[in-house]
Amino acid sequence: MEEREELTEERILEMLDNRQFKELKEELENNMYPVDLAEILEEFEQKQLVMVFRLLAKEEAAETFTYMNSDMREILINALTDSELEEVMEEMYLDDTVDVLEEMPANVVDRLLMATDEEKRAQINQLLQYPEDSAGSVMNVDYIALSQEMTVEDAIMKIRQVGLNRETIYTCYVTEKRRLIGVVDIKDLLTTGESRTIDEIMDTNMLYAQTTDDQEEVARMITKYGLIALPIVDHEHCMVGIVTVDDAMLVLQEEETEDISIMAGVAPNEESYFGTTVYEHVKSRLPWLLFLMLSATVTQMIMNSYEAALAVMPQLAGFIPMLTGTGGNCGSQSSTLVIRGLAIGEIEFRDLFKVIWKEVRIAVCISIILAVVNGTRILIMGQGDAMMAFTIGVTMACTVIIAKVVGCTLPLVAKKVGLDPAIMATPLISTLVDISTISVYFAIVSFVFRL
Amino acid sequence: MEEREELTEERILEMLDNRQFKELKEELENNMYPVDLAEILEEFEQKQLVMVFRLLAKEEAAETFTYMNSDMREILINALTDSELEEVMEEMYLDDTVDVLEEMPANVVDRLLMATDEEKRAQINQLLQYPEDSAGSVMNVDYIALSQEMTVEDAIMKIRQVGLNRETIYTCYVTEKRRLIGVVDIKDLLTTGESRTIDEIMDTNMLYAQTTDDQEEVARMITKYGLIALPIVDHEHCMVGIVTVDDAMLVLQEEETEDISIMAGVAPNEESYFGTTVYEHVKSRLPWLLFLMLSATVTQMIMNSYEAALAVMPQLAGFIPMLTGTGGNCGSQSSTLVIRGLAIGEIEFRDLFKVIWKEVRIAVCISIILAVVNGTRILIMGQGDAMMAFTIGVTMACTVIIAKVVGCTLPLVAKKVGLDPAIMATPLISTLVDISTISVYFAIVSFVFRL
Repeated sequence: MEEREELTEERILEMLDNRQFKELKEELENNMYPVDLAEILEEFEQKQLVMVFRLLAKEEAAETFTYMNSDMREILINALTDSELEEVMEEMYLDDTVDVLEEMPANVVDRLLMATDEEKRAQINQLLQYPEDSAGSVMNVDYIALSQEMTVEDAIMKIRQVGLNRETIYTCYVTEKRRLIGVVDIKDLLTTGESRTIDEIMDTNMLYAQTTDDQEEVARMITKYGLIALPIVDHEHCMVGIVTVDDAMLVLQEEETEDISIMAGVAPNEESYFGTTVYEHVKSRLPWLLFLMLSATVTQMIMNSYEAALAVMPQLAGFIPMLTGTGGNCGSQSSTLVIRGLAIGEIEFRDLFKVIWKEVRIAVCISIILAVVNGTRILIMGQGDAMMAFTIGVTMACTVIIAKVVGCTLPLVAKKVGLDPAIMATPLISTLVDISTISVYFAIVSFVFRL
Repeated sequence: MEEREELTEERILEMLDNRQFKELKEELENNMYPVDLAEILEEFEQKQLVMVFRLLAKEEAAETFTYMNSDMREILINALTDSELEEVMEEMYLDDTVDVLEEMPANVVDRLLMATDEEKRAQINQLLQYPEDSAGSVMNVDYIALSQEMTVEDAIMKIRQVGLNRETIYTCYVTEKRRLIGVVDIKDLLTTGESRTIDEIMDTNMLYAQTTDDQEEVARMITKYGLIALPIVDHEHCMVGIVTVDDAMLVLQEEETEDISIMAGVAPNEESYFGTTVYEHVKSRLPWLLFLMLSATVTQMIMNSYEAALAVMPQLAGFIPMLTGTGGNCGSQSSTLVIRGLAIGEIEFRDLFKVIWKEVRIAVCISIILAVVNGTRILIMGQGDAMMAFTIGVTMACTVIIAKVVGCTLPLVAKKVGLDPAIMATPLISTLVDISTISVYFAIVSFVFRL
């Protein structure tokens, strides 16, 4: 991965110290991407941060601002003059502005809104009303709208005029009384006769989503159909904005991270790993740990009821971690694959029995192999006689089958009842499997060895 | 998520039975997306599949073909005449063609290559040589190249001529003797004076990647900078292709699924959950299960060495699942967050100590809380006296701290030594934590209770 030789943190600090502002300003303009600059500035002190920010050209300043974390943004908002702030706000895309505002304390929001003109403020207030994680909350209200009677020439003319400050002009949207009736790709505009009219070349069989649709579904749709942007309509089918592919990619990355955190028993949060304080980390990890630790009491109570058995055959205890561990792993394999299948839309609740049937067959094969291997191992290592080897083998087999069925079923059920399937991952599954494994284990041994 | 009322599987089958080929052909053209059709055809019998495929227009046929699984492709390849096959191959984009060929048996590949013209065959053989998962293997060789002395008018003219069968024309690439020297967005072409020359408006500070770069890194780069396409150059810095954002999104989805599978101890495979046979599922899940089950032997040996202690105090066994379970969960929380941080490029090996320091502080807070809660619980439930409560509390604390440190360290070490960090997820961590937990546990109890 090569980029042009970069302007490093050290280099910037050095130029600041030597007060080489003019050179730095140039370097920043020609040799730095806003997203990278935002990363670098994270390490800077307030004073330096503000100094560098003031050196940036309007557009760069606005874009860099959108990539900053909320602390940095607040520093700047407090340091900048109203007119400076106004400039930044003017340059920012509406959807970014809204993201910024959503994280800011009320007083700051007021100050920011003051810095924006009437029309924009109205649009912002509109956008702020869409539910979090909805298509409306990530959409961009800047797009090119054409009318069907326009000629290709008119259309290109219009793009020339308004295109400059549109985040994307690659697809144009044909509307009639604000209702979406078709789409035209810029490619088609450039490669057909200028005298043809839009309604001749527009594609009326277009994909679109509602403002209230889930942002992840919208992003998956953009991936599936390989779109550059997806038009968003309100409930009257009026076009209100577009979700662009770059925003879709960020949405997916966020959602994946969220899923993966939940699957590990961590309450998801928007901030990065290092951006999250120790206290917040504790807060997001503790609940599941407490819940799972306490539910393990059940396992313990079961085992205590077999104290007598353990007193007679203490070696029985030695097999427990292996049995519960294997059960947990089998369960998490199944639950994880199903959770992922649900996330990317391959598996749905109606596939429940198809999934169970598949997992059962898998479980049977695996259980036989593991049971035999483990039984043999016990005999070879002399950890028990044939009877013991057989008993453990049978327990192992039951454990695997139960674990796989539980593991594949729970995520689907969760989805059905409107929970996030990801909570049915390893931590919960392994605790449930522990309980079933130990019950089965002691039921079998106490029967076999008449304990 | 609304799409135009869709052509359902049932409807297609019905029209086939009634031999309404003409109507079906129209419906398929106006009212069906290739990616959806490919999904529907999965359920069809060979004969029907071929019938429907023959009804499709060239372009649709080619695109649908690229979305099919390898079984369906083989059925078609065997059913189609050479001239039909030729048409499909002509319409397919090179990168898709290569994907198709990579999965096909040699004899089929030969037949397919026969069906392509000289020039294209040469390009295909070129692409087939790039290592799997490299930028070269996912790139598209169709793009628009401009030279710097062209005027904007010339450029637009060129796009008009060649643009029609280019997968993307949104960004044009300026080359000089095939070397990449700049990029021009179509937006800039349309919004600046036609008489200006390309070198006046081109952006020379552009991002690019090498053919040998990892496809995931390239995709992450496209996400980070919000690009529509990234130019790919060879080692002489000559432009050889582009990776488009839609391919990048698919790459990321694949890579995420792969990571998640590995994290659950499942050997990743390209096929979907249902597309994978029971036998393949067993094959991909068994190795880790076997390995982990056998490594649990260590835990068992440790416990057996304390058989005497267990005979005296059998209730000691009851605490084991809770201790190992909690340890496993703590460890997997840390490892998962670090693995994700590595995947999205937020955490790197040089952050090792920064991460450990953070996890230690988190672990201390959590361990105190869990220890106290658990100790209290033991007293309340009368599962032991103050001494027992204290001992378990201490063990719990040690377990949590060890688990978190191990959990956050191993993924970073794995990355450093060139392994996939994802293998250091829950399954492995929890087995390692089991071993340390049980050693600590028995060491403490046998000391406290003089066993």
